[in-house]
Amino acid sequence: MSKEKKLVESITSRSENFSQWYTDVVRNAELAAYSSVRGCMIVRPLGTAIWENCQKDLDRRFKETGHVNVLMPMFIPEGLLQKEKDHVEGFAPEVAWVTHGGEEKLQERLCVRPTSETLFCDHYAQIIQSWRDLPKLYNQWVSVVRWEKTTRPFLRTTEFFWQEGHTAHATAEEAIEETHRMLNVYADFLEETLAIPVIKGQKTDKEKFAGAEETYTVEAMMHDGKALQSGTSHFFGDGFARAFNIQYSDKNNELQYVWQTSWGMSTRIIGAMIMVHSDDSGLVLPPHVAPTQVMIVPIAQHKEGVLDKANELKDALKEVVRVDIDDSDRMPGWKFSEHEMRGVPLRLEIGPRDIKNNQVVAVRRDTGEKTILSIDDLTETIPALLETIQQSLYDAAAARLSERIYDATEWAEFTQLIAEKPGFVRAMWCGDLACEEQIKDETSATSRCLPFEQEQLSDTCICCGKPAKHMVIWGKAY
Amino acid sequence: MSKEKKLVESITSRSENFSQWYTDVVRNAELAAYSSVRGCMIVRPLGTAIWENCQKDLDRRFKETGHVNVLMPMFIPEGLLQKEKDHVEGFAPEVAWVTHGGEEKLQERLCVRPTSETLFCDHYAQIIQSWRDLPKLYNQWVSVVRWEKTTRPFLRTTEFFWQEGHTAHATAEEAIEETHRMLNVYADFLEETLAIPVIKGQKTDKEKFAGAEETYTVEAMMHDGKALQSGTSHFFGDGFARAFNIQYSDKNNELQYVWQTSWGMSTRIIGAMIMVHSDDSGLVLPPHVAPTQVMIVPIAQHKEGVLDKANELKDALKEVVRVDIDDSDRMPGWKFSEHEMRGVPLRLEIGPRDIKNNQVVAVRRDTGEKTILSIDDLTETIPALLETIQQSLYDAAAARLSERIYDATEWAEFTQLIAEKPGFVRAMWCGDLACEEQIKDETSATSRCLPFEQEQLSDTCICCGKPAKHMVIWGKAY
Repeated sequence: MSKEKKLVESITSRSENFSQWYTDVVRNAELAAYSSVRGCMIVRPLGTAIWENCQKDLDRRFKETGHVNVLMPMFIPEGLLQKEKDHVEGFAPEVAWVTHGGEEKLQERLCVRPTSETLFCDHYAQIIQSWRDLPKLYNQWVSVVRWEKTTRPFLRTTEFFWQEGHTAHATAEEAIEETHRMLNVYADFLEETLAIPVIKGQKTDKEKFAGAEETYTVEAMMHDGKALQSGTSHFFGDGFARAFNIQYSDKNNELQYVWQTSWGMSTRIIGAMIMVHSDDSGLVLPPHVAPTQVMIVPIAQHKEGVLDKANELKDALKEVVRVDIDDSDRMPGWKFSEHEMRGVPLRLEIGPRDIKNNQVVAVRRDTGEKTILSIDDLTETIPALLETIQQSLYDAAAARLSERIYDATEWAEFTQLIAEKPGFVRAMWCGDLACEEQIKDETSATSRCLPFEQEQLSDTCICCGKPAKHMVIWGKAY
Repeated sequence: MSKEKKLVESITSRSENFSQWYTDVVRNAELAAYSSVRGCMIVRPLGTAIWENCQKDLDRRFKETGHVNVLMPMFIPEGLLQKEKDHVEGFAPEVAWVTHGGEEKLQERLCVRPTSETLFCDHYAQIIQSWRDLPKLYNQWVSVVRWEKTTRPFLRTTEFFWQEGHTAHATAEEAIEETHRMLNVYADFLEETLAIPVIKGQKTDKEKFAGAEETYTVEAMMHDGKALQSGTSHFFGDGFARAFNIQYSDKNNELQYVWQTSWGMSTRIIGAMIMVHSDDSGLVLPPHVAPTQVMIVPIAQHKEGVLDKANELKDALKEVVRVDIDDSDRMPGWKFSEHEMRGVPLRLEIGPRDIKNNQVVAVRRDTGEKTILSIDDLTETIPALLETIQQSLYDAAAARLSERIYDATEWAEFTQLIAEKPGFVRAMWCGDLACEEQIKDETSATSRCLPFEQEQLSDTCICCGKPAKHMVIWGKAY
């Protein structure tokens, strides 16, 4: 009885060993499993259902902002990958190469896409002729492959699932506007749906995407104080357009290069969601993304009327929330642990005494708090309670984030904060790569971003003492 | 002005050159484009939106029958692919091999999945222990790669998009029941959503899936009388379970092998839909799958009140149908051709005179028929008219199918029918591979299936004259 066995195994405590706790939650909540393929995960039914809810939500936001979906090939011929110099330098070292098709050796190797800028550019060069064809606002939902040395489910895997938006515009201004628009879509999604507060900002040149002029990012703080880059949006200028010769005739019938962007969000965000909200009882799912928002557990279900009443509740509630009933032959205590482990936001217990009193017992996954609710108005109280849970998860995460952002104006203070305080440190920077690298070498913190909300904390660079140009958020990162 | 140019190009007539007509429809309706990757297509926004509607519909049917989605890796290590003998013989000659990851040469080659039985079996061997774990009813939506020599958009491409269901059951009976259930799901989807009538039956041993004990199929007839295999469902017996050692303890605590199935449907069905319904004006989309079901075209839109009224109609109709408005600066005639080419089932024209008369002109894509409709009850008449179009497309296809199924009891009659009559021929067969191969060699017709509805047309095999065992449907196929 593998199931019973699994549940009595306690998972590692989060405060004791965060990394092992994460792995335990992923395994015991049955989110993902290791496969026989090096570095590739199997996303199990619960993990896939969460990803599908993320997809539905994001896809709606993409369509509301005028984007359409396409499907590009998974392969990129080597010559195509090489067309943009910075881009190929960034990606070539980590791609998987197909060298044989069936029994024949290929004349030109194909890489499995690590990202698809080159394919979209190749297509745009074919289909964009006139100003009437612009903007092109395309997105695709696929998986990509990057040959990673060390992998962890959701956080870093050789193959991962994502969406990649690729757009072409008539002017630089429109493209920059798009880059910001999509960064805001990501921030709104993370905050509203995954209840993850984020910091928006710009990446340094060192950390930006291969081939981009500017990379914008949304950074989130995990429960252990480390950073996780949760979505990025890139402005390419006309660099790819020149490399791929993507031109359009403007209204004066003159040829112009297009201006491009790309933006991506991946299954990493499931890792972020776990590391922001979950606890020592397992997964905690924000209601907006939970595949099952409410689990009804009948008490003494063999007694007359209990299962009927529980099913009646389910039928009423399914009009307003995603609800299920666990009428298996397990004991209620077993069911409680199981659905806590799997992160169901709200449990409803109903037994003979509850039925007599025309009530249910509602138990919140996030706080464990029990409330007695009248059966009569559950279709109103339950959705409201789910909203309360959603908001409460966000508020708790936002409090942790703001409490753990420290400011430093002296090097000693900076290194001490990074070494001793889980969290982020804000400090001024001269803009030189040398200082950025030195900070990384000496503290293992990286520049997370130049936040859009800048402040002048001091006049000099935290590292070299030269005049400061930007305030940077530094942190250790996944 | 590429768009104007394209529209005056007429497409090849369907009766003149069916194959070129198909290619023209795919290109001019902007369903797919060729890519720089040999044999791989780009699915353009309209093609992708159609596929997404197919996915939504099928996914709902899968979930209603108890299935859940997962995501498996795209790679299969060579050793894993080789575990089931018949399976590897069938697929190894047509897979793409990854030999290098980043800069390192791999110790074991990985193939890009041509299908995922081996990955699911490997996972099932890990997660199935007890009778409580059964059945496992998994599906995934992914793309697969088979190294094809000649390719055509949607019909046969090196990479194609599909779903693959993989299930494990406690008994052979349950697995066989599942195989039939999913074949019926496919048939219902094709008939109800794509308006394509199908014939259900069993494949011969020659035509069945590599590794299957039995393969069931739904076969459709294209407008040119050729067959297209539109979905298949396989019963594996316990062959894979033995090869991968997938065992469970039954209620008596004894180890048993599981019984398995798989079933798949791909973007080929978009090819089928085109070849069943479309015509010399371009694509014809059944309303149930059309991304835009109704296109409103304002007439004399510069005149006061026209655009306001057209938008008012759109706002009212969007509650009940997928509706859009074309208020671009093109001429109405240009818009008519464009949306006919792109297969929109119903066009609504509204101009100053219509507004005065409180009416719109509705034009059916399938028949060209014009109807005057009162503005007052459009939210009722339009959905009803779309249902009429859906049914009418199905009825026309069903009539063509039944009119073009011929019976033969003599060899000369059989070969003449195959040679001269586009369509299918029903004839008796002894069950020997030799006859099946001879028929293919001499007529280029293949056995499409042993239809579930069997009849005894004669006592002897159409080919060798020996006693007949089955009635077979023969036809030329895509």
